Amino acid sequence: MLTVNNFIKEFNLNVDLAVEASDLLRGGKNIEIDGIEEKVETSKRLRVNTITVTTPEAGARIGKPPGNYITIQAPPLHVNDPELQEEIINMLSKTLQKITLPFLKPNDPVLLVGLGNRYAAADSLGPKFIEYSPITRHYHRYAPEALIQGMRPASGIAPGVLGTTGLETLEIIKGVAEQTKPALVIAVDALAAQQIERIGSSIQISDTGIQPGAGIGNARHPLNQRTLGVPVIAIGCPTIVSAAVISNQSIQKFCSNSACAYDEAAATESIKKVLSYFGGSLSVTPKEIDEIIKNTAKILAGGVAAALFPGIKQRQLELYAM
Amino acid sequence: MLTVNNFIKEFNLNVDLAVEASDLLRGGKNIEIDGIEEKVETSKRLRVNTITVTTPEAGARIGKPPGNYITIQAPPLHVNDPELQEEIINMLSKTLQKITLPFLKPNDPVLLVGLGNRYAAADSLGPKFIEYSPITRHYHRYAPEALIQGMRPASGIAPGVLGTTGLETLEIIKGVAEQTKPALVIAVDALAAQQIERIGSSIQISDTGIQPGAGIGNARHPLNQRTLGVPVIAIGCPTIVSAAVISNQSIQKFCSNSACAYDEAAATESIKKVLSYFGGSLSVTPKEIDEIIKNTAKILAGGVAAALFPGIKQRQLELYAM
Amino acid sequence: MLTVNNFIKEFNLNVDLAVEASDLLRGGKNIEIDGIEEKVETSKRLRVNTITVTTPEAGARIGKPPGNYITIQAPPLHVNDPELQEEIINMLSKTLQKITLPFLKPNDPVLLVGLGNRYAAADSLGPKFIEYSPITRHYHRYAPEALIQGMRPASGIAPGVLGTTGLETLEIIKGVAEQTKPALVIAVDALAAQQIERIGSSIQISDTGIQPGAGIGNARHPLNQRTLGVPVIAIGCPTIVSAAVISNQSIQKFCSNSACAYDEAAATESIKKVLSYFGGSLSVTPKEIDEIIKNTAKILAGGVAAALFPGIKQRQLELYAM
Amino acid sequence: MLTVNNFIKEFNLNVDLAVEASDLLRGGKNIEIDGIEEKVETSKRLRVNTITVTTPEAGARIGKPPGNYITIQAPPLHVNDPELQEEIINMLSKTLQKITLPFLKPNDPVLLVGLGNRYAAADSLGPKFIEYSPITRHYHRYAPEALIQGMRPASGIAPGVLGTTGLETLEIIKGVAEQTKPALVIAVDALAAQQIERIGSSIQISDTGIQPGAGIGNARHPLNQRTLGVPVIAIGCPTIVSAAVISNQSIQKFCSNSACAYDEAAATESIKKVLSYFGGSLSVTPKEIDEIIKNTAKILAGGVAAALFPGIKQRQLELYAM
Repeated sequence: MLTVNNFIKEFNLNVDLAVEASDLLRGGKNIEIDGIEEKVETSKRLRVNTITVTTPEAGARIGKPPGNYITIQAPPLHVNDPELQEEIINMLSKTLQKITLPFLKPNDPVLLVGLGNRYAAADSLGPKFIEYSPITRHYHRYAPEALIQGMRPASGIAPGVLGTTGLETLEIIKGVAEQTKPALVIAVDALAAQQIERIGSSIQISDTGIQPGAGIGNARHPLNQRTLGVPVIAIGCPTIVSAAVISNQSIQKFCSNSACAYDEAAATESIKKVLSYFGGSLSVTPKEIDEIIKNTAKILAGGVAAALFPGIKQRQLELYAM
Repeated sequence: MLTVNNFIKEFNLNVDLAVEASDLLRGGKNIEIDGIEEKVETSKRLRVNTITVTTPEAGARIGKPPGNYITIQAPPLHVNDPELQEEIINMLSKTLQKITLPFLKPNDPVLLVGLGNRYAAADSLGPKFIEYSPITRHYHRYAPEALIQGMRPASGIAPGVLGTTGLETLEIIKGVAEQTKPALVIAVDALAAQQIERIGSSIQISDTGIQPGAGIGNARHPLNQRTLGVPVIAIGCPTIVSAAVISNQSIQKFCSNSACAYDEAAATESIKKVLSYFGGSLSVTPKEIDEIIKNTAKILAGGVAAALFPGIKQRQLELYAM
Repeated sequence: MLTVNNFIKEFNLNVDLAVEASDLLRGGKNIEIDGIEEKVETSKRLRVNTITVTTPEAGARIGKPPGNYITIQAPPLHVNDPELQEEIINMLSKTLQKITLPFLKPNDPVLLVGLGNRYAAADSLGPKFIEYSPITRHYHRYAPEALIQGMRPASGIAPGVLGTTGLETLEIIKGVAEQTKPALVIAVDALAAQQIERIGSSIQISDTGIQPGAGIGNARHPLNQRTLGVPVIAIGCPTIVSAAVISNQSIQKFCSNSACAYDEAAATESIKKVLSYFGGSLSVTPKEIDEIIKNTAKILAGGVAAALFPGIKQRQLELYAM
Repeated sequence: MLTVNNFIKEFNLNVDLAVEASDLLRGGKNIEIDGIEEKVETSKRLRVNTITVTTPEAGARIGKPPGNYITIQAPPLHVNDPELQEEIINMLSKTLQKITLPFLKPNDPVLLVGLGNRYAAADSLGPKFIEYSPITRHYHRYAPEALIQGMRPASGIAPGVLGTTGLETLEIIKGVAEQTKPALVIAVDALAAQQIERIGSSIQISDTGIQPGAGIGNARHPLNQRTLGVPVIAIGCPTIVSAAVISNQSIQKFCSNSACAYDEAAATESIKKVLSYFGGSLSVTPKEIDEIIKNTAKILAGGVAAALFPGIKQRQLELYAM
């Protein structure tokens, strides 16, 4: 585990999924770690993994603040299947309702945040999520008669990325939250995974907010209850794997196939040579990434809307989206 | 003037350009109005009209708060001409430098705001302006070595519109301004004109901020020094004319051609019948509106950048844009 | 009628909808015209008008080649309603199945054509239709196992417009048709209407192909069986009204309200003065035109897919779209 | 070389750049190969490599048909530099003028083709090239007075990809070529490289057309003089490296660093395990790929326009682009 973490550090990588961070921490073994509870449930074709980090010490070890990390994992490559999509939307909705129960009352206003760069394919999940989400807050002010009974105020913003706005995500979202006082922020972001098959098939929901530098967007400061003054639910989906990770896995697999000894320092040095250009920020994506992003954004928007507006039909909700 | 204003009121129109509001107020005659000073200069192919509203009473009459309104008018339909473009960029830059002189020092940070809906052709001028503008604030924090000597911090945001975010523009911009403390806000918006030939050929610069409901974006609350706590320079360009205005002009012209008496109440009633659908929010645009918007956004970005970063070449500045 | 046609000629307008051309020809009266048969049916909330032009002489008078022109008219402004959308999709599918029955057998290949400019809001209906349509032809060649039983080969192209390609639409489509030998071409285009309320609420289906200069795209040469060697079904939906038409209607309404005599020559001259800029190519559109286009493109794609792939569920078909 | 080619075959890779194919063939050594001539020139910051394949046998060995392959190589990562851009544009223009000299006379019409998928970031180079290119053919027909003296007819088409049109690229381009009779086709496509540093810094110009399956677009049938009946100049720029190639390079580097024996069969098997998802079509791209594509498309459009319209200024030519 330690050696792996060195690799991660050398390449300045993020292990965005708690379920992958936990695997790395255990070194792939089935051992118990103090302060980290893990639970796995399955439901038809879905596998739901809940990791609870209960102490700051465990948080430091796994690189995640204390809180709950729930990963819905669908079978890879089958997500473009209407029935499976519905199953995921239902599971996401159920999960969100449970995790937001402690701090969200029926008519409380919610601010949806779509992180990432709308002009960069693999990073546009957040902005696309906002496009597909029902937005209702302005009707409460200007046209309440256009609302369906029981619709809470929902607003949405895609703040863009530091490189194109010159503004920290936190500066924008904190500013908006202070002006509009939502009871909850739900932030969606594209993540980096360690495993190719997770692209387009995993959803992580967490009650700890968005961590610095997570994913390929540039959220340098955390978005969480402490920084925003509002609870933050983070929803993230892997859309890339770092090229360094893929290369390292290939070397490890080669070593085990060829009976040569894997050495992390040598692997790190070799990979750095190969990937030195573009500051090492090289991502691996499948050719169909644009389609995957669109598909995933729709699933997330569907699941979040179902959780926020219980009892209202999906196709009614779509009329309130962009 | 009064009858015209009734028409404007009936159709809930905005007279965004002060130069047009002044014309309406004078009833097309060359008379002096207390509290309104008007000055016209020409420069090669440009005509620059400066209207200064000096008293609140005059402001109430002309429908604009006291302050300066400068309109750069190029010959219509010739704007797609590189030399004329350069002439406009230079005039815009000169005008902005003069109007911002009282409250902007060389290294002061500036927040650029692109109002309007990026997904609606005629309303996307503001978001496109942000795309083409050099953004430098983050380099000051994270990579000062990438800046050219003398570059001030500039950030930029396109906040979207109420209908798709559920957020008032003021809420977003006020939030961001409070978090990031710019010395000046420069806000760009698409405007509605009274004359077709102004589309794509006029630029209005004002030191009074953006007024409620101006243009076809839905900025319902004003963005100005009072609401934001920061001075606001507004730059607006006409991209549409209301269909009601065009129809009324046609009726007026018909009456003068046919020796029948123009009657505003009858005209209003007639036009309302014809334009009753879509809540009357019908706009007239030329077929080439997308091209006009792109062209205009580039000119605005060029002029603003030249004013904010004096002495740095246009093509160097382009490298800092999206 | 003659006077009206002069107006149309003066402004170089197209009367794209046969139902409107028929109204103009009758001068708004309920008279019979030799060689033109008209039939109206209603179905729940839809009104279906079928005009059959039976002789070349009648064709010359109405400005449409002999053939069938079916217009599905939904109540205006209510189209963003899931149940009404389904009703329209079903009616469109039924209409297409009937009109293509004579020349389309179950497994015959079809070429879908999306006319217009994808980068110009009101003209992007055709390209968006292609985006939402199921495309299956390549699976027949390379992956037949991925097809659902009974899926015919469907290909699709959005050829762009003369102004951006330098190519006539006919040159591209004829070239593709000769290379790929479809049994039928279905071409979708944005149309100009005479009545604002038809925007977003009318669909015209015709078995006579696309006529020169129709709509706001620049199809200068007709696309029909004679020019392409393949039967062409044209589907068109109004997305604009000419500003000249709106102005003329306002003058007419004003005259009838004010008891002044309407004079077409004077009206024409007056409107020309007001609209002289931009070569007179000024369109009236509602503010929400982008949304209307998207909505309409989905309805058209749904109806065409249901007609071409009978018995396959809509949500299965969506998986074969872009 | 043979073993390397096995790897390439196993992963169904394309070695799009002749300069890389030649390196692979020589096994990295500086040896002469019958039927392949190679020449390197440098010019300020550019390196220009010309490979001439003179016999079909040599063509079979290097995997490229006989003809000329010229690669302009700029220093990596510095391309976003206005002076270097101008240098590349000039070199590209000079190269194109020389290579097209045998079959293109001053007023001959040219058809520009932008291959690839406009909706997929790394594959959108071709469509973007068309957007930025001056299109003049329609003016020759409809408005010759709008042309600058000496402008030849140029048309342009981005045919899309098989997966979204159901049409082979060849079917579309052959159809258009037969209808419009250009004297030359210039086709631009995104390529796959073997070396990360080539992304955004290499341009390959060839007089042999586009080969089957080249790049990440799906041109399954060659576009060349034989298939189209018109000479085809191909211009390609690397925008991705296959994840398999990166992984293999990492393993090779690791082996040489760790003194373990590289074994291609074992490497192939290992990499296949890691990359089995998404049919192995996994690409490595830098985070800034969208910006690279835009930048490269502008350089290509500039160089091609300078070659086709000698003596006309770049900023004049830009007015004829989209």
